[in-house]
Amino acid sequence: MKIVVLKFGGTSVGSIKRIKNVANIIHSYHKKGYRLIVVSSAMSGVTNDLIRKSKEISENFISTEYDVLVSSGEQAACSLIAARLSHIGLKSRSWLSWQVPIITNDNYKNAKILFISKKKILDYLKKGGIPIVTGFQGIDINNRITTIGRGGSDASAIMLAKFFDAERCIIYTDVEGIYTTDPNKLKKARKIKVISYEEMLEMSSLGAKVMQPVSIQDARLNRINIEVKSSFTKKTGTLITKRKNIINNKIIAGISSTQNDAKITLVGVKDKPGVAAMIFKPLSKNLINVDMVVQNISANGKETDLTFTIKTDDLKKTKKIIEANKNIKFRKLLLKKDVSKVSIIGVGMVTTPGVTFRMFQSLAKKNINIQVISTSEIKISVLIDKKNTKKALIALHKEFKLDYYR
Amino acid sequence: MKIVVLKFGGTSVGSIKRIKNVANIIHSYHKKGYRLIVVSSAMSGVTNDLIRKSKEISENFISTEYDVLVSSGEQAACSLIAARLSHIGLKSRSWLSWQVPIITNDNYKNAKILFISKKKILDYLKKGGIPIVTGFQGIDINNRITTIGRGGSDASAIMLAKFFDAERCIIYTDVEGIYTTDPNKLKKARKIKVISYEEMLEMSSLGAKVMQPVSIQDARLNRINIEVKSSFTKKTGTLITKRKNIINNKIIAGISSTQNDAKITLVGVKDKPGVAAMIFKPLSKNLINVDMVVQNISANGKETDLTFTIKTDDLKKTKKIIEANKNIKFRKLLLKKDVSKVSIIGVGMVTTPGVTFRMFQSLAKKNINIQVISTSEIKISVLIDKKNTKKALIALHKEFKLDYYR
Repeated sequence: MKIVVLKFGGTSVGSIKRIKNVANIIHSYHKKGYRLIVVSSAMSGVTNDLIRKSKEISENFISTEYDVLVSSGEQAACSLIAARLSHIGLKSRSWLSWQVPIITNDNYKNAKILFISKKKILDYLKKGGIPIVTGFQGIDINNRITTIGRGGSDASAIMLAKFFDAERCIIYTDVEGIYTTDPNKLKKARKIKVISYEEMLEMSSLGAKVMQPVSIQDARLNRINIEVKSSFTKKTGTLITKRKNIINNKIIAGISSTQNDAKITLVGVKDKPGVAAMIFKPLSKNLINVDMVVQNISANGKETDLTFTIKTDDLKKTKKIIEANKNIKFRKLLLKKDVSKVSIIGVGMVTTPGVTFRMFQSLAKKNINIQVISTSEIKISVLIDKKNTKKALIALHKEFKLDYYR
Repeated sequence: MKIVVLKFGGTSVGSIKRIKNVANIIHSYHKKGYRLIVVSSAMSGVTNDLIRKSKEISENFISTEYDVLVSSGEQAACSLIAARLSHIGLKSRSWLSWQVPIITNDNYKNAKILFISKKKILDYLKKGGIPIVTGFQGIDINNRITTIGRGGSDASAIMLAKFFDAERCIIYTDVEGIYTTDPNKLKKARKIKVISYEEMLEMSSLGAKVMQPVSIQDARLNRINIEVKSSFTKKTGTLITKRKNIINNKIIAGISSTQNDAKITLVGVKDKPGVAAMIFKPLSKNLINVDMVVQNISANGKETDLTFTIKTDDLKKTKKIIEANKNIKFRKLLLKKDVSKVSIIGVGMVTTPGVTFRMFQSLAKKNINIQVISTSEIKISVLIDKKNTKKALIALHKEFKLDYYR
């Protein structure tokens, strides 16, 4: 049975008109002969309204009931879609997570799907029905409602695709796909037709607006082809798949840039083992995420400078922690807010020499100074002055020939 | 185990502030040592909003999905109440109808509760928990959500009271109780402290705003004491109970009047057997409810006049049916819209002679002409000109000493 999972996000079902449109999209896949499993989020705004109510009831709203509360939105959305499909003559019904059932652990508000029972849905598919499954939720073994944390309905869709061995999982959302860089920052940004899971994960600073990294990771682990596309146009979206499915690979898939990084330099720290650990341990304890780290080569063998980046929001807290820790010796503490991390991402760079050189040269030509560098197998990131971000994006987008669709 | 069922209507849980108030009411019963089962409707406005959406999706919204849609409101309300009780330190949780479970037939949109499984709720009560059960809904044997038709959450409360053998079922609503007559029509209307099921049923034209007759009938059949009271005041409400529990019975419990009746008179119909049937059969077929009927004594033994009342909404349709039926012979058809049925209701009249006389005399004294009369064991109804309604209410209210609390 060729199964396709279709997932619709909150904005895609955000009004009655849009739900009717969603029904037409489902109809078009049905006509192509696919067996469909549809997953829906709540209508946009509904979940936020419920969350607002929960806060007014209690600042410490009990998590078991929180899940009962916020899961009610998907129930309504699914019944509206199923009824619309019935209206246009298709066999369809809503399937609430306890009806399927979708079993999760009992980590309320942030549960994980453990198992999806296939029998009832398969029977229904065989009868020609189109099941509309509530996203973002499940039940635990005690029959209590749970909601899935990060990833939400995307995670539901991917797990349904996994358990039903779906050919593809199509995520309908309010963007047309994944772009070579943020279209709001660079006009020349192009939609990527196909991208690997790994590239997509590295581009999470772009992609997070589209899909949570945890969902991409789930898809990668289960080798599920994901197509991200908009329910508002008929345009092709972006296919997220495994590397070897990508034939005409470009060296660089995309470029990301950050907005809210800060740089900290400790000038004149002792150049001996254990110093870096002594600095980063208390930060880690306080849940401060240290990103790029660079340590200068010691000139005299005794002292060195240690530079690292954190989120701007954590700057004050970090300063306090470092200054409070008398074990950390340094001569001067430099804080700098207006920096941006620009990264080029692409599986192609593994096999292509000179990518790093081309990146650095492009930036040098534009007089952009690189402050910190970090690299992974498929990503090179540089820290630059924030004011140079756009200039850097333009230069790199051109250098790696991203100005045209691939 | 002394169990009390508390039911809260939509206006009682109509805002976060009101839900907090409801939690305090529940708390006050808990402190008195009662084991509580709470039933809640959806927050007022929520169900209507869902119904509006259903109509926009389809004028023939499939009934199975309609029930999934509109039942989602109770889920949210129950979780908010349970969370608020948790917030103030009580053990409470929501119980969705599939979790209890509450089993209904599969008559979607108008289902009837067949069975309520007691085990899980009893276990929870024994642990000191306060279950908050979703009103207005259940599941059928195929695990699909159903909603209960007329009576809604009241019916849920009464059936819970029945299955759990509750001592009392308290219906919290937005009125303070049952009145001797409509307080909007007569300032001197008084709240009734205690009323029998039978009187309450006869007063349905008043009581329907408070409770559906079907729920009162269910309570009567299962001998469940119902207290109707307002969640907005601390005042005593009205107890609806069996006749023999009422000690200090007044002759008349209350007076009702109608707003939308119409009178039809067929002048000069043949006075022979089968004529009335010939007229009423096609009306019944067309679901037109004939209420009061009177046939004059034939003056000449050949012809008579037949008068009956119907709802004003059915007037046009009735006229059409009568005129279309060539078997119905009459000389003239008289239609009159501006009539009102005024009824006095009370179990006391069975044992008290002269009630009819006192009623007619009171009206005669005010020059109010009686057009049609009908009686039952505990009710006398008269049809009068609509313009005399208020005058009649004042006179009867005084005559039967209803101007003071009983």
